[in-house]
Amino acid sequence: MFYYLFRYLEEAFDMPGAGLMSYISVRAALTLITSLFISMIIGRRIIGYLQKQQIGETIRDLGLEGQLSKKGTPTMGGIIIIIAILVPCLLFGRLRNIYLLLMLVTTILFGILGFADDYIKVFRKNKEGLNGRYKIFGQVTVGLIVALTLYFSPEAVIIENTSNIDEQKIENVEEEDLSEMGAKKSTLTTIPFVKQHNLDYGDLVPFVQKHKQTAGWILFVIMTIFVITAVSNGANLTDGLDGLAAGTSAIIGLTLGILAYVSSHIGMANYLNIMFIPGSQELVIFASAFLGATVGFLWYNSFPAQVFMGDTGSLTLGGIIGVFSVIIHKELLLPILCGIFLVESASVIMQVSWFKYTKKKYGEGHRILLMSPIHHHYQKKGIPEAKIVTRFWIVGIALAIITILTLKIR
Amino acid sequence: MFYYLFRYLEEAFDMPGAGLMSYISVRAALTLITSLFISMIIGRRIIGYLQKQQIGETIRDLGLEGQLSKKGTPTMGGIIIIIAILVPCLLFGRLRNIYLLLMLVTTILFGILGFADDYIKVFRKNKEGLNGRYKIFGQVTVGLIVALTLYFSPEAVIIENTSNIDEQKIENVEEEDLSEMGAKKSTLTTIPFVKQHNLDYGDLVPFVQKHKQTAGWILFVIMTIFVITAVSNGANLTDGLDGLAAGTSAIIGLTLGILAYVSSHIGMANYLNIMFIPGSQELVIFASAFLGATVGFLWYNSFPAQVFMGDTGSLTLGGIIGVFSVIIHKELLLPILCGIFLVESASVIMQVSWFKYTKKKYGEGHRILLMSPIHHHYQKKGIPEAKIVTRFWIVGIALAIITILTLKIR
Repeated sequence: MFYYLFRYLEEAFDMPGAGLMSYISVRAALTLITSLFISMIIGRRIIGYLQKQQIGETIRDLGLEGQLSKKGTPTMGGIIIIIAILVPCLLFGRLRNIYLLLMLVTTILFGILGFADDYIKVFRKNKEGLNGRYKIFGQVTVGLIVALTLYFSPEAVIIENTSNIDEQKIENVEEEDLSEMGAKKSTLTTIPFVKQHNLDYGDLVPFVQKHKQTAGWILFVIMTIFVITAVSNGANLTDGLDGLAAGTSAIIGLTLGILAYVSSHIGMANYLNIMFIPGSQELVIFASAFLGATVGFLWYNSFPAQVFMGDTGSLTLGGIIGVFSVIIHKELLLPILCGIFLVESASVIMQVSWFKYTKKKYGEGHRILLMSPIHHHYQKKGIPEAKIVTRFWIVGIALAIITILTLKIR
Repeated sequence: MFYYLFRYLEEAFDMPGAGLMSYISVRAALTLITSLFISMIIGRRIIGYLQKQQIGETIRDLGLEGQLSKKGTPTMGGIIIIIAILVPCLLFGRLRNIYLLLMLVTTILFGILGFADDYIKVFRKNKEGLNGRYKIFGQVTVGLIVALTLYFSPEAVIIENTSNIDEQKIENVEEEDLSEMGAKKSTLTTIPFVKQHNLDYGDLVPFVQKHKQTAGWILFVIMTIFVITAVSNGANLTDGLDGLAAGTSAIIGLTLGILAYVSSHIGMANYLNIMFIPGSQELVIFASAFLGATVGFLWYNSFPAQVFMGDTGSLTLGGIIGVFSVIIHKELLLPILCGIFLVESASVIMQVSWFKYTKKKYGEGHRILLMSPIHHHYQKKGIPEAKIVTRFWIVGIALAIITILTLKIR
């Protein structure tokens, strides 16, 4: 809104300072500050309201130290994050941008999905929450919406090679110019470390030579659904210690914001030899809102937490990260960037399958970890909760740096 | 070292990949990863050694919850930070760069000063530590070294107006070219928010018209000493809760690194209309090492801490921040960026002076805060230590964003 308001003010009245809103850096910083303050300010009220509604999560008794003191802490705090993302984006974003719209839709849909899950858990007292089938159905639906929008929208294009484009020319680029510059719809995706920077999903299905492009798009759709489902469930599993999911997501969000920025800037994209994605600068606005919202949420969620994000938060954070990375064609960097989600998920899968396997073979189930997900394993080993969380954050920071390094070192 | 090694390898053998080291981004990321791992890896050993030497800080009994459990935690952990800064800089830095050299000298000198302080406290069992006069003497000496080096060195120049310079030309700039481009020694400094971006210290002493330049430099020297002393004491006071000083410094270090980067890049400097500082890209390397070292230190220092940084750490962190900001002519942004140090210092000054004043006037001393520095005030109010620290970090992040915004919004 402000974007359009200030552009109007500048054009109509030549108001001094109004032109500032055309700088992506200024809009991003204002978005960040706004979302940070929104989540901090509304946080207190929403937590009070949630507490009043007696939305205290029924804690599973895991025999962990300090766990009982968590009884009575309200959940569904993800609502705070969602509001703190949506409002600044509406204020400072260019709402006609297809990518920003996709992100806002993702946030709302995953928010509803997570809310339904929490609602059933808390008010229906059904600890299983939303039926697994409905959850998967919801995740697949969002994945389909995203993939098909990217497939059909004429705005969702990339320019693979920017070295021939005059940097001056791109400043005020019109839609017509883009195709002239070589913009095209594409199933290319950036892959880490190797010299050949991009992988075309179409190349993975060589057996259908004739319909290679169609097959590539089908693979892209499947991949999109897989990524979104995997990341959203990974974030869900990670959400088990105070501040763990929120902090880890904040670090990932910052990194994705940087990736979106360099993808939206023709000079940077050329310098890094990655694809140029016109319009992805609005994703920088979204990433700023995401960063501010998660960091602001930590004000209340950090150890010892006054509120939990619940599935309302964790499914949404994961879904956002998945969709964002698909839009900027960087989903294959996620095994590194979201390494924590990956390890958390893997720890559960390994623990469960090994237990089942040994039970079948020896009649008695064995465990690899003291407990899964892995953050509880460290807790059982006696490391204090706050320390585990900070250390996971530090690992997250290291993974983020490595992710950014992959752009340059190959 | 690696910088020169790889440049040699590239020139002599045209080794593939060796050219990567010429990218500041690659060197910065490698420095960051290296310093992070160094502080994490050597941390464990050094903590073990410190513990063995029984260097456990004698905790002042402040009547705070959980305080007694801190007995036996070794101090002087700042040694870890110092090593984790110095080694990566020696590996990845261009050691002929005057700014990098100044930072390394600052790190070492403040390290020695802080170590002396800790040594007296711990081994001589003298709780006052180094005599206040010696401490101030050390801080002033470093300030003088920095200010005079910046005054005398022919390398320490800035270019105020970059709009006329061809961006291509700057890529391989030789020293001779710089003066042609308008590089000059200067007492200019960036000030926040106002339209006129730079303040010349020379303008503050209009009463000595004839010797304006000399007077400006004298003022610059005084200012440098003041900034370095103030920030270093501020960091020292802030260091009272687990992870507080290290985390806050990490956020400030990241911000200073960004400021150094935009100052070293002619295109960015021009875009932001700030002064261009040739050679300040090596400060990006230093800031990366600083960031990695402090974050890595948090691995052990975060709540509940296994080690304290001691004055070895806090005086050094503060000194580094002060010197760095003076070198990039951004010291007047510090009241915002280092707002936490400022408030911590102010809380002590206010508390003490109000107590003395009321005692003199009413015969009985009154207090403004429950306890100073202010972080103990919140502790007395019953907020858990870990939560206070995270919240101070969040405030630090907000201050960092505002600092960066001041570059653009004015």
